Amino acid sequence: MTADISHLEEKKVASELLFQGRFLRALRDTVALPDGGAATREYVVHPGAVVVIPLLDDGRVVLERQFRYPVACVMVEFPAGKLDADEDPLLCGQRELLEETGYRAREWARAGEMHLAVAYSTEVIHIYFARGLVAGERQLDQGEFLDVFTATPDELLGWCRDGTVTDAKTLACTVWMQNVLSGHWALDWQSADNPAS
Amino acid sequence: MTADISHLEEKKVASELLFQGRFLRALRDTVALPDGGAATREYVVHPGAVVVIPLLDDGRVVLERQFRYPVACVMVEFPAGKLDADEDPLLCGQRELLEETGYRAREWARAGEMHLAVAYSTEVIHIYFARGLVAGERQLDQGEFLDVFTATPDELLGWCRDGTVTDAKTLACTVWMQNVLSGHWALDWQSADNPAS
Repeated sequence: MTADISHLEEKKVASELLFQGRFLRALRDTVALPDGGAATREYVVHPGAVVVIPLLDDGRVVLERQFRYPVACVMVEFPAGKLDADEDPLLCGQRELLEETGYRAREWARAGEMHLAVAYSTEVIHIYFARGLVAGERQLDQGEFLDVFTATPDELLGWCRDGTVTDAKTLACTVWMQNVLSGHWALDWQSADNPAS
Repeated sequence: MTADISHLEEKKVASELLFQGRFLRALRDTVALPDGGAATREYVVHPGAVVVIPLLDDGRVVLERQFRYPVACVMVEFPAGKLDADEDPLLCGQRELLEETGYRAREWARAGEMHLAVAYSTEVIHIYFARGLVAGERQLDQGEFLDVFTATPDELLGWCRDGTVTDAKTLACTVWMQNVLSGHWALDWQSADNPAS
């Protein structure tokens, strides 16, 4: 699917720092609209992230339960985390899976990526599958609290339907999980010859 | 699935306005961690939104193509928009579908909701299906530019797989679309007796 986008595109005219927090950084840009008009765009600048769909040998998947302060709920999520500066997404996925769950994986496959909040964030999340999982000790960051548990793919789908799972990145990963496990979408699996240490 | 969350929960100690932009508003809260430690949480306060999965009588779905400045791409998305103050989500969905695409729908079904960016935004998106669509004139906001087009569900799934669709809310809606259209997930359809005018 290709399309001429010149009638949709907005072009940057100016950019100013809206604020720099400890975690969040936001910009306000002035843009030229397709019709020549002007508008402002306020958005959060994010380093990017990785989410991992970990498939256990028994057919179950690894999930996390974590309190998410902005929405004041404990969310069920696939393991995920932010990229460190200049970090390779695959290495980030291996690091986050190990730190948060204790699992290392013998094989990894890149699925795709998602843009999380296109109206007000630059965040892109790289989506990986992991299999050949070997359990070990997790290494949570200071001040990080989360539970690790496992579920069958059917249980996870049921939770997406009944409202137990509402995390957008986890719902988006569930499209991938369902179509890969049904055999409709193929993955290009690679050995983890550079596992996070 | 129920779980004791007391070992995960964070409690607010203090809250300050980080900034108030024209569109974005952000807070920085100090929280008590489950182990008694302290941390700060910076997040965007969002009014909430609605996304609509519009099913045409011929089996196709209605999609939009819109330039999203923060990610500097034209994104393929289901129609969506922010809630006005105190707006009912269903009425918001009817309003946004009409404004952005020109379609009115005879029947609506609430599917569920998603939390878009749980690490740094309060945003919840209510998910609706619409069917019995009747085309009309769209009524875009000043400075709003987007293309409306249609696709088969299989085309949309192919675009999720090949990276054409990377918008997280649209990927999340695709889980719903796929499982509703396959007959695995049932919806409770309601007549649109209060259509947006």
